[in-house]
Order: sequence, then C-alpha cells, then structure tokens
Amino acid sequence: MHRSNPSQSDRSNGSAAGTPPTGPEGLAGADFLQLNPADAPAGGLADWLTDRLRAAISDGRLPLGTRLPATRVLAAELRISRGVVTEAYQRLTEDGHITARARAGTTVVAAPLTTTAPPEHRAGGAAAQHAGEVDGSRRTPTEGRGLRARRDGKGAVVEQPGLDVFDSLRAAPARIDLTPGVPDLAAFPRSAWLRAERTVLNDLESSAFGYGDPAGTPALRRAVANWLARNRGVAADPDDLIIVAGVSQAIGLVAQVLKDRGITEIAVEDPGSLGSRQHLQNWGLTTTPIPVDGDGLRVDLLRASGAGVVMATPAHHFPTGVVLEGERRRELIQWAADGGLILEDDYDAEHRYDRPPVPALRAMLTDQVIYAGSVSKLLAPSLRIGWMLPPPQHKDALIGMKRLADLGNAALPQLTLAQLMESGELERQLRFLRRRHRTRRDAMVDAVRNYLPTATVHGAAAGLHLTITFDDSSNDVELAAAALHKGVKTHPLSWHCQLPHAPGLVLGYAARTPTEITEAIAIIAEVR
Amino acid sequence: MHRSNPSQSDRSNGSAAGTPPTGPEGLAGADFLQLNPADAPAGGLADWLTDRLRAAISDGRLPLGTRLPATRVLAAELRISRGVVTEAYQRLTEDGHITARARAGTTVVAAPLTTTAPPEHRAGGAAAQHAGEVDGSRRTPTEGRGLRARRDGKGAVVEQPGLDVFDSLRAAPARIDLTPGVPDLAAFPRSAWLRAERTVLNDLESSAFGYGDPAGTPALRRAVANWLARNRGVAADPDDLIIVAGVSQAIGLVAQVLKDRGITEIAVEDPGSLGSRQHLQNWGLTTTPIPVDGDGLRVDLLRASGAGVVMATPAHHFPTGVVLEGERRRELIQWAADGGLILEDDYDAEHRYDRPPVPALRAMLTDQVIYAGSVSKLLAPSLRIGWMLPPPQHKDALIGMKRLADLGNAALPQLTLAQLMESGELERQLRFLRRRHRTRRDAMVDAVRNYLPTATVHGAAAGLHLTITFDDSSNDVELAAAALHKGVKTHPLSWHCQLPHAPGLVLGYAARTPTEITEAIAIIAEVR
Repeated sequence: MHRSNPSQSDRSNGSAAGTPPTGPEGLAGADFLQLNPADAPAGGLADWLTDRLRAAISDGRLPLGTRLPATRVLAAELRISRGVVTEAYQRLTEDGHITARARAGTTVVAAPLTTTAPPEHRAGGAAAQHAGEVDGSRRTPTEGRGLRARRDGKGAVVEQPGLDVFDSLRAAPARIDLTPGVPDLAAFPRSAWLRAERTVLNDLESSAFGYGDPAGTPALRRAVANWLARNRGVAADPDDLIIVAGVSQAIGLVAQVLKDRGITEIAVEDPGSLGSRQHLQNWGLTTTPIPVDGDGLRVDLLRASGAGVVMATPAHHFPTGVVLEGERRRELIQWAADGGLILEDDYDAEHRYDRPPVPALRAMLTDQVIYAGSVSKLLAPSLRIGWMLPPPQHKDALIGMKRLADLGNAALPQLTLAQLMESGELERQLRFLRRRHRTRRDAMVDAVRNYLPTATVHGAAAGLHLTITFDDSSNDVELAAAALHKGVKTHPLSWHCQLPHAPGLVLGYAARTPTEITEAIAIIAEVR
Repeated sequence: MHRSNPSQSDRSNGSAAGTPPTGPEGLAGADFLQLNPADAPAGGLADWLTDRLRAAISDGRLPLGTRLPATRVLAAELRISRGVVTEAYQRLTEDGHITARARAGTTVVAAPLTTTAPPEHRAGGAAAQHAGEVDGSRRTPTEGRGLRARRDGKGAVVEQPGLDVFDSLRAAPARIDLTPGVPDLAAFPRSAWLRAERTVLNDLESSAFGYGDPAGTPALRRAVANWLARNRGVAADPDDLIIVAGVSQAIGLVAQVLKDRGITEIAVEDPGSLGSRQHLQNWGLTTTPIPVDGDGLRVDLLRASGAGVVMATPAHHFPTGVVLEGERRRELIQWAADGGLILEDDYDAEHRYDRPPVPALRAMLTDQVIYAGSVSKLLAPSLRIGWMLPPPQHKDALIGMKRLADLGNAALPQLTLAQLMESGELERQLRFLRRRHRTRRDAMVDAVRNYLPTATVHGAAAGLHLTITFDDSSNDVELAAAALHKGVKTHPLSWHCQLPHAPGLVLGYAARTPTEITEAIAIIAEVR
C-alpha cells in the first residue's frame, strides 16, 4: 500500500510510513489488561501470561493491529523477568496471533478462531498441531444464518450490515454512483449482442428452446473453456464446466454441497467481499475470517484455523487489490495438497493496467480448487451468467444443485455469449473497456491525491475499483452515509471486514466519467 | 374421461362442425377475462359484456392503457355477433372508459368511479356452508418426515424414478419425442423476439445492465400483472409479483420458506407431476399423495391428511387434465380459509380447445394461495422465466430466497418478454399455437383410436399433452422403455404417481407434426 501513488504496486513498500496503518500505538504497561502476576499459579508465569494475552486478543480487548508493549516495558510493569514475556510473545507468534517486525513492533495479526475441530474432509496434517490451542465455541449453522454475523466474544465485533443492504443501497437515489463491482455499463455492446443473437437464432435447432442440460449449453461451455485457456491460463474440458447465474450462485451451490457433506465452516479473506460472505452465511456456513496482509492471505493463519475450505481471490484480492505473493501461493498450494479445498473467485481477473497478468490458481491446482468466474465485470451483472470449474469429485453434486436451483441457465443468452466469445467480440470489448477504465482509474487516483491527501490508496493496479483507507479512527459507515447524503454512493470498507480494520471506502471508478469521479471525491473530502 | 373419442371431451362438446372460419376454432369462451357467454342472461348479451368489461376496468384487471381485442376477434372467440361487442364497446366509450383511435385500437382510458366487488369476493357465500363438514386433525410438522412419501398400508408403494431421470431421458436418442410439457418449439417467434429485444435495447438506460431488483424488473412485473388480469382473472399489484426462473424455481423457493418455518410436509395431487414432486422432496419436504378423481383433488382426503400445505393444478390437472369441479373448488377454498396454504401451479392454463376458460384459484383467494406460472408452455422452457404471486405474509421471505438463489433473473430477457406481452405479440403467438396444437391434438386422439382402441384418453380438451390409460395390469415403465427402444419418447404414467394407478402413458403432442404423432402412436401399439 502506498500514499496516493498508482505507479507503485499494491503490496510493495508496506512500511513506508514506519507504522502499521491500524491500531492504537504502544499500549503502555501499567493498566495494560489489568494484569496482576499475583493471579498466576506458582511456577506458571509464562503459561499464565500467554493465556491472558490470548484471551484478550480473542475477546477483542486487543483488536487486530494493536501493538503490544515491548517485552522490556511489560516485564518492568509487571515486575517479572523479561524472559517470561519473551516466551509468551514467542508462543503467540508461533500460533500466528501476533507478529514481530523490525520497526512495527509486536502486533496482533489474528484473533484465535472460534473453532479448532477440522471439518470432516480435511486431512489432519499440519493443522492438527494447533488443535486445542485456541478456544471458542463453533457457531451452529442456524446461528450463522441470522441477519447479522458477529464474531463470538465480547469486544471484537464489527457491526455487520443486513442482508438487504445492497438492495437498499441500490434503491437510494444518488447523483454519482461509485458502488464497486460494475464495469462501464454504458459500454455494453448492444449492437454486437443483437448481431450475435440474430446469428444464433438463424441457425438454432428448435430443441434448444426446450429443457436443456442443467450444466449449460455445450456451445457456451466450449467457448468458456477456450476463453479460460486464452485469458486465464486454465486448461478446462468443456464437459467439466458448469454454467451458473453468476459467481454468487456458484457460491450458493458450493455451500449447499459442503453442507450436505457435513461441512459447516468456510474460511474467508478479511477484508473480503461482504456479498460473498452473506451468501455463505445464508446457506448456513460459518465464515471464519483469515487476515490478508500486503502479501495476501495469511496462509499460516488459515492453517492454524483448522478450516478445511477457504474462499479466496488470489489473483486480485477484493477489496484491497493485493496479489497473492509467490511464497504465499506455494504455501496455499501446499495447504490444498494437504487436503484443503479452495473456492477461487476470479472475479475481475481480466481488468489490469500496471501489472503483469496473474494466472488463476486453478491453472496450477486442478483437484483442490473450485474455480468460479463470470461476465458480470466484463459485460454486465444483469446477464447473470458465470461458470464454475470444479474438481471431478464435486462435479456431479454441483450439477445436481444447479438443477435443483433453476434447471439450468436460460439458453438464448448463453448461446449469444458463446457467439461473442468465439467471434473475438468479447476480447475487443475487454480491450476497449481497459482503455476507458484506465483513464477513469487515473482520474480517481488524481482526485484522491488532490482532495484526500492523507488517504492511502490500495489496489489501483487492476480491477474496477480502488480502496482508500484513513490512518485514524474515523467511522467509515458514517462517512459513506454522509457522502450518500450529498449524492455520492460508495461502500464503507468496514462492510467488507469481520475483524477490526482501518476505516476506508471502496470506490468503483469503472462506471463513471472522470468529471463525475473528480466531483465525487471532492464531495467525499468535503463531508469527511 | 372417454374412450378415444375427441368429440366427447372432458368438459364440453368440442365438435369442429359449426366453428366460424375466423378466430380460433372450437373455443367455447375467451381467454380474455375468461368471458363465457353461457353466463349471460337470455337476450342480455350486450348488457352482460358491458358489465363484465366495466368490472374488469374497475378492479384493475384491465388497467389504464390496455388495448382491448378487436371487435372481430373478441366476437369470434365468444362466438357471438360482432354487433354485440361493438355495442358494448360503444357504451363504454360513451361512459368515457375506453376510446377508439384509428391505429391504436380501442384502449382503456379511465376507470369507473364506483367499484364493483373485488375478484376475491366473486365466489360468494356458497363456500361457507361447507365449514366444519369435514374434520381431521392437522398433523404436526415433523410427523410427515422422510424423503419419499409412501402410503401407509400393505405394499402400496410405487417405485420412484431417480433425480436425473429427465436428464437421462433427454439425452436418450429418439426419432419422435412425445415428452409432455413443451409447446411447439419450432413456433418460437424468433423474429418477434429479436424485434422486441432491439426495441428494448434502443431505449434502455445503462443502469439496467447492473445488479437489479431480485424480485424482477418493474417492466416485466407490470406486464405480467396485466397479462394475469387479462388472461387468468387475477388482479395483481406488480409490486407483489416475483419474477423467477420458471415454476420449478418457484417451487424450490416456497419449499425453502416452508422449511424455515418448520413445515416439513406438503400434500400433492396423485397422480401429479414427478418433476414438481422431486423438487419438493429435494428441498427436504415430504410429499403426501392426495388422490385425484374425475372431479379433481379429493379435498376430503386432503383435509383428513392433516397437511397444512398443498400443491395443486386446479385449472388443468397434470397429467389427467381434470378441471377442479365447482363443489370441490368451494371445498378447497374452505380448506384454505380454515388455515391451509395452496401452491397453485397454473402450468399451461392458456392452452384449451374444447372447454370454457377456467380462472385461476388465486383470482378468488388472495391470502392463502401462492400462485405460480411461466412462459415455459407458452414460448419456451429454455427462457427460464416465470412468476409467482404470493400472499403478502410470504412475499419478503420469498424475495429473500430468490436473492439467495441467483440475485434475480437476467434483465434483458425479462424486458424483451415484457415488450412481447405489452405489444400484444404474445397473445398473437398464443392464438397461433392454439390452432396448431389443436390439429396435433386431433391427430393424436385419432391415432390412439385407430391403433390403441382399448386405451382411455384423458385431458384432451386442453393443454399440450394427453394421458392414455390401459384397463389392465401391464407395466407402463416397460412399455415406455420399449417405445423408446423403437425411437419414441414418452413418460410412463407411473412416474407421476406415488399411489398405485392404472398403467398408462403421458404423451405430448404440441411439439410434433400430425404425421410424426400418428407414426409414434403406431409404434407404441406395436410394442405394447
């Protein structure tokens, strides 16, 4: 992350300012957690201190990003040996709850998770060594199904928006809509679409109007296989692809299959898409947050969580834009090889400006990745067309779920899209969009630099949105509400977080003109 | 039911003799408002028609801006003098309710100030007299559990086909496909569809390509409300309609809402649609079979079953074609008034040949009927567009389930269909299909009479299929398999039965030519 500078990539230079962007600094010792060594059993000081710190991280008294006192300072305050503090910190580091960095000090990076029991299909392996080290009760599926997901424990609760939050936001009037997640809708290739549909209708057999294969029309499955091979490095047999009504349906189908197999938990990136999380929760899964840092998903913490399944955006993290770094990628692949299952949401992989293309994880890992993508960010969300490429062992169950959901996507739009893909029209559209989006991205970065100079910009190298964070304790929900009141629609970053995180906004730039974007950012600066 | 004799059809005499050359042949009434001249008092046709039209304008079934049928068309459909229609139109014009313009046709321009009785009260007080005549305690939700509903008793169990039976059947090669449930797919109005889509794309705001209302586009909800008012006697507020991916999705959404409310059992007609039953079962509901006889659903047995919810096809029973008889209809309405919930599958209501139109149950009963319909039998199943009209207390939960399923149907096909509905194109298509289907129906009835003289024909007066039964103990699954082996695809009747029933076949005629139909029936006779 960097200060308003699009030319430096997202994940470089994370310590430019010398301090992590989040968290109260340097909690001093005296009152720190009201620790009293007199409470410790004889000869068990290190155990006691470790337990107390872990409990405080777990229940939210030490939120993510909190800097712990220096060992020297804490030891002095507690009047215990510095070695005891060092040992406690060391154990928590090994558990993945805190980390020590040269200049940033010792920082809380992950809360102990609410579950330790590995889901059924997960092999024991490395995860098992952490079993029993963390406590917390597992949410039952029905509890997770409520309107609001909350983290167990007292303090570390991030208020979660309700299920209809996107519908409400959509219904709200606004002059400039910076909602992330849509391409330039005005650029939808109406003529090309109609031409393609006429071509399809000219040649179509009547039987195509009848009930069809719930997995999709053969023509679109072939076209998507070719598209993935050309654009995402993924070699897919068309027979293995399932056409779905967008990635959100793919998530729902996977959730149902997991539940049928007794799996009730899925790890998710944090920050991570609120919409995806809501979907998973509403299908009855607990979403365990795994922190994402400047190198992407903390695979060590994923492993420590004991979760058997993770949903991730490795090629372009939502919403921070981080690309999963090479070593992390290898760790994640190893985690999957040890029995983990990855739901890869390749949500806007095609849109990039200042960085080399990143192949999908699925390109490297066929048996442990359920790959999902769509044309929502490429053409239009309202087409409701996406695809999934599951490993063989999940294919039939997922097709069964798709049949149950709607008997399969509508045929005519599938065939029209196939025509656009095979004719090269869709790639032309992508090139066109990329030029246009880039200009808009630049306008937004410039506007942020001018009007919000203290904001940090994340994820400007690719995608349809960027994220800005503020190095303070302001309330981003209130900020977004104030901006909306002035006619500018955005997402507060905290919507996309289950764990505490720096305040910020997620700002879509693809669908608005540079003038609108500049005006919108000025308004945000005004109400901030 | 009758022995292979199309002239003694289910409900009325449909003999072709005396049919006027203009208009659809053999109709005893109009789809338009379900007008049936037999209801008119002697010598009072013009009064009657004027009153009916005024009532429909008043209660919203003919909203402002609706184009009325041409006098010639309506007169032909009603088999009354054109002068009668002209007189009724003239009176309404004088009242200021409608206006005739040269090219725009006759259009509703103002509603009467005094309202007539709303549709739900039309059934009158007759229903009340049956209250308390039948008793039966309601079963608690958990008692009916189990994946397959089987009748208690001695071995009265019918083997049930697997979940993928329809996919397998579809994949099987066959020369002549008599699978029931599809209209003439070759008649899909390709040019009209493209024209409508071009019109839509010319005027469309860009935001329509973004994420939309999960309940459907306002334009289609309006168009469906108008369609239901004109053709099914149902007065619906567009805001109460939910656009879905066909009736099978509607069934799934209802099943999920029922389950969330602790309901685990739903009564179904027997015989009754295998596909619907499979859907219900796969969403975890037990399907309790309620026998259907020559008057329709045995409401006394429904009441005795204790089930709180029933799925039914009152206007045209699948697969036998029975229309729920008047007294039974009143019993069912009373059952609902006593707290029962009806899922009304109005699956092919528009297709009828030899009988008067039957309004939907929903027209009489708004608070206890979840109404579901689609264009699968009108245009094409592969469009995956349908609608549901739930009572207010279930609306939000069903919209939530639709959001969870797929975030809402794709927008463009919705808008194109709305255009076809509002322009009158869909009604033209229906009239065209009806003529064509009628010829095919006649060909099938003739062929059965010639080749299978001992078979009994059911449901020939309406729909897209008919059912034949045999008065013996032959195995219809084996018969269907033998026919398929010879290149003829059908459904064995026993697929659609949970309770023991006479053997038979369900034969779709709408999608095949008279020559193909005759050949197929000859082949069935040969392998029998």
